[in-house]
Amino acid sequence: MGILGATGTVGQRLVAMLEGHPQLVVTAVAASDRSQGKTFGEACVWRLPGNVPSALRALQVRPPEPPLDCDIVLSSLPADTAGPVEAQFAAAGYPVISNSSSHRMDDDVPLLIPEVNAGHLAMIARRSGRGFIVTNPNCSTIMIALALAPLQSRFGVEAGVVTTMQAISGAGYPGVASLDITDNVVPYIASEEEKIERETLKILGRVDGGGARGRPAEFPLSELGLHTAPLCPILVRDEPDRPQPRLDRDAGGGMSITIGRIARDRVLSHRFVALSHNTIRGAAGAAILNAELLAAEGYLSGMINEQ
Amino acid sequence: MGILGATGTVGQRLVAMLEGHPQLVVTAVAASDRSQGKTFGEACVWRLPGNVPSALRALQVRPPEPPLDCDIVLSSLPADTAGPVEAQFAAAGYPVISNSSSHRMDDDVPLLIPEVNAGHLAMIARRSGRGFIVTNPNCSTIMIALALAPLQSRFGVEAGVVTTMQAISGAGYPGVASLDITDNVVPYIASEEEKIERETLKILGRVDGGGARGRPAEFPLSELGLHTAPLCPILVRDEPDRPQPRLDRDAGGGMSITIGRIARDRVLSHRFVALSHNTIRGAAGAAILNAELLAAEGYLSGMINEQ
Amino acid sequence: MGILGATGTVGQRLVAMLEGHPQLVVTAVAASDRSQGKTFGEACVWRLPGNVPSALRALQVRPPEPPLDCDIVLSSLPADTAGPVEAQFAAAGYPVISNSSSHRMDDDVPLLIPEVNAGHLAMIARRSGRGFIVTNPNCSTIMIALALAPLQSRFGVEAGVVTTMQAISGAGYPGVASLDITDNVVPYIASEEEKIERETLKILGRVDGGGARGRPAEFPLSELGLHTAPLCPILVRDEPDRPQPRLDRDAGGGMSITIGRIARDRVLSHRFVALSHNTIRGAAGAAILNAELLAAEGYLSGMINEQ
Amino acid sequence: MGILGATGTVGQRLVAMLEGHPQLVVTAVAASDRSQGKTFGEACVWRLPGNVPSALRALQVRPPEPPLDCDIVLSSLPADTAGPVEAQFAAAGYPVISNSSSHRMDDDVPLLIPEVNAGHLAMIARRSGRGFIVTNPNCSTIMIALALAPLQSRFGVEAGVVTTMQAISGAGYPGVASLDITDNVVPYIASEEEKIERETLKILGRVDGGGARGRPAEFPLSELGLHTAPLCPILVRDEPDRPQPRLDRDAGGGMSITIGRIARDRVLSHRFVALSHNTIRGAAGAAILNAELLAAEGYLSGMINEQ
Repeated sequence: MGILGATGTVGQRLVAMLEGHPQLVVTAVAASDRSQGKTFGEACVWRLPGNVPSALRALQVRPPEPPLDCDIVLSSLPADTAGPVEAQFAAAGYPVISNSSSHRMDDDVPLLIPEVNAGHLAMIARRSGRGFIVTNPNCSTIMIALALAPLQSRFGVEAGVVTTMQAISGAGYPGVASLDITDNVVPYIASEEEKIERETLKILGRVDGGGARGRPAEFPLSELGLHTAPLCPILVRDEPDRPQPRLDRDAGGGMSITIGRIARDRVLSHRFVALSHNTIRGAAGAAILNAELLAAEGYLSGMINEQ
Repeated sequence: MGILGATGTVGQRLVAMLEGHPQLVVTAVAASDRSQGKTFGEACVWRLPGNVPSALRALQVRPPEPPLDCDIVLSSLPADTAGPVEAQFAAAGYPVISNSSSHRMDDDVPLLIPEVNAGHLAMIARRSGRGFIVTNPNCSTIMIALALAPLQSRFGVEAGVVTTMQAISGAGYPGVASLDITDNVVPYIASEEEKIERETLKILGRVDGGGARGRPAEFPLSELGLHTAPLCPILVRDEPDRPQPRLDRDAGGGMSITIGRIARDRVLSHRFVALSHNTIRGAAGAAILNAELLAAEGYLSGMINEQ
Repeated sequence: MGILGATGTVGQRLVAMLEGHPQLVVTAVAASDRSQGKTFGEACVWRLPGNVPSALRALQVRPPEPPLDCDIVLSSLPADTAGPVEAQFAAAGYPVISNSSSHRMDDDVPLLIPEVNAGHLAMIARRSGRGFIVTNPNCSTIMIALALAPLQSRFGVEAGVVTTMQAISGAGYPGVASLDITDNVVPYIASEEEKIERETLKILGRVDGGGARGRPAEFPLSELGLHTAPLCPILVRDEPDRPQPRLDRDAGGGMSITIGRIARDRVLSHRFVALSHNTIRGAAGAAILNAELLAAEGYLSGMINEQ
Repeated sequence: MGILGATGTVGQRLVAMLEGHPQLVVTAVAASDRSQGKTFGEACVWRLPGNVPSALRALQVRPPEPPLDCDIVLSSLPADTAGPVEAQFAAAGYPVISNSSSHRMDDDVPLLIPEVNAGHLAMIARRSGRGFIVTNPNCSTIMIALALAPLQSRFGVEAGVVTTMQAISGAGYPGVASLDITDNVVPYIASEEEKIERETLKILGRVDGGGARGRPAEFPLSELGLHTAPLCPILVRDEPDRPQPRLDRDAGGGMSITIGRIARDRVLSHRFVALSHNTIRGAAGAAILNAELLAAEGYLSGMINEQ
């Protein structure tokens, strides 16, 4: 498995989560110009607790272009370069599992949350010699879609009003200047509202011709034994003051979302508060879970690097 | 003018804002048992920048009960003691201007925001020898009602969905433990949602029999020359990333609210972000502005202490 | 093992660290009046991520007085009650391992950091039918003494100037009000400077008559296989911007301290920056490590609850 | 007066402090390439509360090179460009008052704190047709030198050990990434320790041949009526928990430093805590006060723009 954008915030989180993964082994790391020619240990200013995983320290950082010494690629490239690079890898035969926004709305690209719309895998057009792209949604959208999916499935959801309070990690590194956010709230993230609207609709939609598996929440995910899948994707708490980020973000290894304060609402029938880990369920863990689902469903057959 | 609860968070803010006020002079301070028998300078652990106003340093702290050496009282007592104490002062003939929640929903107590519902002063039953109570709303409600009033007046407002992000100052002192709020969000303040719902309805409602002045936003407030009234109670900003607390909370001396991100909304027709200073417009400044309106409208005639 | 003060900040950390401990099993929890008569699950407002360990949820909270259903007690009682209660337990035959400051300077009470002054165990006067008290130092002192011990042992340390920057967790719960510490630094913790001075001197001192083991850093701790002991108690980093709390506090499971920025100093020959986890190495983990040392050295023989 | 680097953090603070200044009027603003050709209102992303001063909004941003439509220049250019630009302005006849570090250690450049070493103005070699450079120290050094000056003057200071806790504003904009500083302490600012050492020595030193005025703290500053000079440059507080940034940084309009916790120290005879406002006393206010001193002492004669 190769990581595109391995030195970035989400890239580091991918690398950390894949350390010791029973199935997915990092064999290549690629990043922008500045890092190339260095080892990963030299190129990477590690910003997570602990150190760069020792197995990757001596790996040479490669340019983000095929061929790369791997069978599949995980991409956390910044939005301004991800588009053509990911298309190039797919054209060269690699399955591309991406956290970037560039291809999320493409017709043949599933916007995938395994617990919600695994059936959307049917959107992948499998052609000989060609790879494909699978994306995970925007960090906020993942939580929103996870929370709405069972409501949509059982009751139908007509409309929702959402206010997000987002972790600074969502902006990557260096992201938001500390002078701008200390003692402050910034009510704007470029394109965020648009992403949330259109991505949620795509995820909760049905794939035409996608067959029987194309309904949310009917996919028997738990039988697949995916390594990163939480025991319980949605935790509901009864205490009036939960969820709280400090107490709940790491639930299920950062892959469970927590719901609380469910109440009747005079305007929109019901309201609730949902919380999820921004860089695990909302980014790196989402991409890895997608890779695991693809592997379990046979989309990576003969492609997973064995060690 | 006497301050009840003068040593608390809002009490200190009242004292600071009244320093040098052209009309309202603090002549008495009252607080709970622990402070009594001390001077205000001794009793008060000053938590605002600067020092206790020198004119008040030697004032004896009195028990919160009539008689008090003043003609009117401003109350920032905690909710658990405000109810009977304020009623006692009113019964003893004092006009009571309160920031506490105890009497806000009483039938003969205006829940007053001068720019919004000055006409609600008609709710005061003026009887010889008796005082009265005027309250200001909850800190969130003041901003919500200020923002909705012109919309209500011109277009009518059927329903709204509100998410608040509140400053820790709203909980008073000591309020929220730092261990509970650092690196965290707490999605619950006891009774807050109920207060916002019922107080907003009372403020934006019409006083039956209140006559021609009982409509929001028609009162010629600017002609009254109230000292604490901002030039512009509602500022609208066009930048996509405003309002921001650090940049906008002190607008109009902390008495203007700032609106931004006005946009069409697919679910509820329009949406926007509003911001106001929690302890000035939302508490101390609100009470002082109410006192100024009462004075200007003749409700304190012969009662204001002249110096 | 019984936990005194089990519902407090350090008590909860003790309970969390002891979950699944191979040797030390919690059989009793005691706390102040308010919690008694409730189960631990009811009495404890859990402030750590996750939930109250399920094995303890139904345990009845007992008053902090002997007899208690355990062989040894870990005490994280607040300073105002710890003194007599711990003495009472010791008198009743219990070994008492305390994080409280009350008995730290007592003549027959070791102020113990296993890696530094294990030889001080010789201070314990073992008398038939009587227990004893062993304490760990103040959170800042543990780090200072750990950092100085090898310097003292090899070069001798004449004097040091220390500035501490302390986590808010050091004040317990509710501790510091958020209004006091947000956007602020408070340059004072009552008695902290005095504790650091006198405790460091006691820890780095030699026990008269304590024999050959009474020298710091000569005790073969690693051979004892203590469960909570970190592989490396002192990590030294070369990067100019380390240690940093976010990156380094969890090193060694929170039990390693990290040193950086070692440099020659014009005034005091050398200077450096040291960092440790405030509630693990500085409190709960320190007490548990002391318990493990006592067990390994035979001081708890026949006392450890076996399961 | 022209401002070099007017759109930066310190530049904006300069502009804000000079609004309504009785003597110093901004007539020109210069900044780096990106801003040129725009008005100051267009070029400047205003990061202070309120808005760009209206008088400057339509001013064209100029390149930072002479000639500039002003008699003197205030420079807050970043260190990487300040050196040659400031030299160029001085060579062209402008008095340059700089907050940048480039020329601080030059032989003919006073490193000036008016209350401490006004006599160092004697270092300026006044030659016909030529300007000169006057600098203010690093933000930490200003506070340290202000605190030490009276001790040096009365008792002599042999040595000191200093630990600084610095506001994020010291790094300019965008400065420190929020991901790096949230829930964290970074123990390193490049060159900071070296600057503090060498600048403090220069400030507290005597100018050879500088004559009778070359002693710290003997200059009758208060008689000069400098607009930005605080009534009391050093405030001493007795409370054990002061100074605190939130309560004390704005003392004297941000130009007073506050000292507390003065105590005997076993190692270095005495210790204390000092606090000052990082961007006012430590940067913009320091430069403006220097300009006012130069004006009062006749160094800008015929140069101040009168309006």
